[in-house]
Amino acid sequence: MTALSPHALDGPVLVVGCGLIGTSVGLALRQHDVDVVLHDALPGHAELAVSLGAGRPLTDDVVPYLVVVAVPPSASASVVVESLDRWPEALVTDVTSVKSGVQSSVDGTPGVDRFAGGHPMAGSERSGPMAASAQLFEGRPWAVTPSAATRPAALDAVVDLALHVGGVPIVMDPTAHDRAVALVSHVPQVMSTLTAARLNDAAGNDLALSGPGLRDTTRIAASDGAMWLDILGTNARDVKAVLELVRDDLDRVIGAIGHDDEVLAGVLESGRRGTTLIPGKHGSSAARFDLVHVQVADRPGELSRLMTDTGESGVNIEDLRLDHDLGRPVGLAEIAVALGVGQSLVQALTSRGWTAYL
Amino acid sequence: MTALSPHALDGPVLVVGCGLIGTSVGLALRQHDVDVVLHDALPGHAELAVSLGAGRPLTDDVVPYLVVVAVPPSASASVVVESLDRWPEALVTDVTSVKSGVQSSVDGTPGVDRFAGGHPMAGSERSGPMAASAQLFEGRPWAVTPSAATRPAALDAVVDLALHVGGVPIVMDPTAHDRAVALVSHVPQVMSTLTAARLNDAAGNDLALSGPGLRDTTRIAASDGAMWLDILGTNARDVKAVLELVRDDLDRVIGAIGHDDEVLAGVLESGRRGTTLIPGKHGSSAARFDLVHVQVADRPGELSRLMTDTGESGVNIEDLRLDHDLGRPVGLAEIAVALGVGQSLVQALTSRGWTAYL
Repeated sequence: MTALSPHALDGPVLVVGCGLIGTSVGLALRQHDVDVVLHDALPGHAELAVSLGAGRPLTDDVVPYLVVVAVPPSASASVVVESLDRWPEALVTDVTSVKSGVQSSVDGTPGVDRFAGGHPMAGSERSGPMAASAQLFEGRPWAVTPSAATRPAALDAVVDLALHVGGVPIVMDPTAHDRAVALVSHVPQVMSTLTAARLNDAAGNDLALSGPGLRDTTRIAASDGAMWLDILGTNARDVKAVLELVRDDLDRVIGAIGHDDEVLAGVLESGRRGTTLIPGKHGSSAARFDLVHVQVADRPGELSRLMTDTGESGVNIEDLRLDHDLGRPVGLAEIAVALGVGQSLVQALTSRGWTAYL
Repeated sequence: MTALSPHALDGPVLVVGCGLIGTSVGLALRQHDVDVVLHDALPGHAELAVSLGAGRPLTDDVVPYLVVVAVPPSASASVVVESLDRWPEALVTDVTSVKSGVQSSVDGTPGVDRFAGGHPMAGSERSGPMAASAQLFEGRPWAVTPSAATRPAALDAVVDLALHVGGVPIVMDPTAHDRAVALVSHVPQVMSTLTAARLNDAAGNDLALSGPGLRDTTRIAASDGAMWLDILGTNARDVKAVLELVRDDLDRVIGAIGHDDEVLAGVLESGRRGTTLIPGKHGSSAARFDLVHVQVADRPGELSRLMTDTGESGVNIEDLRLDHDLGRPVGLAEIAVALGVGQSLVQALTSRGWTAYL
């Protein structure tokens, strides 16, 4: 499905940081004729991104509507605060993979209401502007993490940004986000590393027996260590909490293996059940989803309100499409959810005042 | 590359057990016009495999040259011993994923010299004859695990079997095999399970943030629990030894995360280094291998001797091809190994009397 936004981003979008993510944002927005302005502390990166067609260079006369901070994680909080200060009318977001730290740096600063964090769940083993792609975010979740202080227009702009680049906006608070990524991204990364680390003990022809299962489970362990050191350090508390639960299960397996089939079967079954909870995008998906249709008025804030209400209903969004005829005051959102849960989403949205149906 | 065997399998190959593996062996051998005979304790399975073209039904007059025991793991040792007894001239192999247990059941029985274990590193999430495919083993490692008692003709027959079905024979002793599969298969399975098990703790929209990394690391956790309970139980000692080392690393990560970047960086780097050791089949492989050419005389035992000598040189075989003109007394084996190690394999093989060159 292709996501289409009902609102144009109202004015220049300034992308600060022209690496893989920033340049890809620029390329994707340019496909919708959004006015994109590019800046990077390394002028060469910005020039390269401009030459790739990701936008025009930043000049003093630019008054951005939205600033997308896409700098390395360690610089993100300070660039967000600087941007809120330098452009007192601009809405600001960032793309770092851990949200609480940036949010607490922004809390209490003037302009905190103009900030809503973001985290596109997309990347590549490669980095830098040359690795960028307008399709990088296509169909991928884009976490949008407003705080209690965020004004609706800021949340709306980030949801719009996610939709413009083809992503699926998922609205959650920064704390919930960090706990979620510990579970679905950071801990799997550590587990992949621990599995791959043992291969250094291989002798003789051991690794000649490698199959696709080993390649799949260890693929992400080949990622950039410096980046992961940064991510794991920033989300230490949440990652550690999950890893301690993993250690409990590992101790259980070590104790049970070869002795207690019941305990071992329980852990295997728990893992199998866990895999069934992952929203499935692969395969013939059409028949596997309920499609919930929701009428969305063409005014600022409606779409982000829908995303927030859907998120609070506890239903996972598998995919999202917006159909909107120019000139009509109402658009139609089509939300794909797991088979069997569509009716409960319809009820949840109806009780919140939406016109929703299967 | 397509693997071609220089020797025909000299007579009927009896496949006992017409599940996924047995039926696939039959289908693949039939493509080379090998005479395949099928038997299954469940007559319906055998009939279905026959109807799929995997071979002809077993009749009393059949005198098999090679018996391939492809029954469930728990029945494998007894069916191997029965087969050695029932067909006193036949060579016998099996396909179970753990080798020491079957080998110790066979050790000391009459006919032990006619047995060489095997383990094709191939499978599917599906099972049964309907899931079978003549291509199941194409390019996949097929571990061949002779004991000290195995006669050369038996080793030769199993290497030939692996080549006929398109596999890459890797000769190792049963003990080394079980340690290797703990590392490259059984422990990754447990790690995938432990990662997926944590997903049961997900709340709200957490899993909406799932990306390809999570799907890759947890894919094999969806496998059949009963099969893995059996495999892990049978290889308990080796799996436990590796899992204890994993736990040491996990404790190190839990202690270091957010406090000691040096320790954490060390574990991440160890994982990254581990991934580089996995033989790579994906991508544009041609330029990434050294090709070692070896002359192989057209007489029984030569090919398995070459596989054994290559294995003992400590070099991983990435791929293997045999060119053999009918009527010429010498064939040419082309062994693909990692870039840079071809010369050491040439030296190792030359010192063992082979004519080998890059």
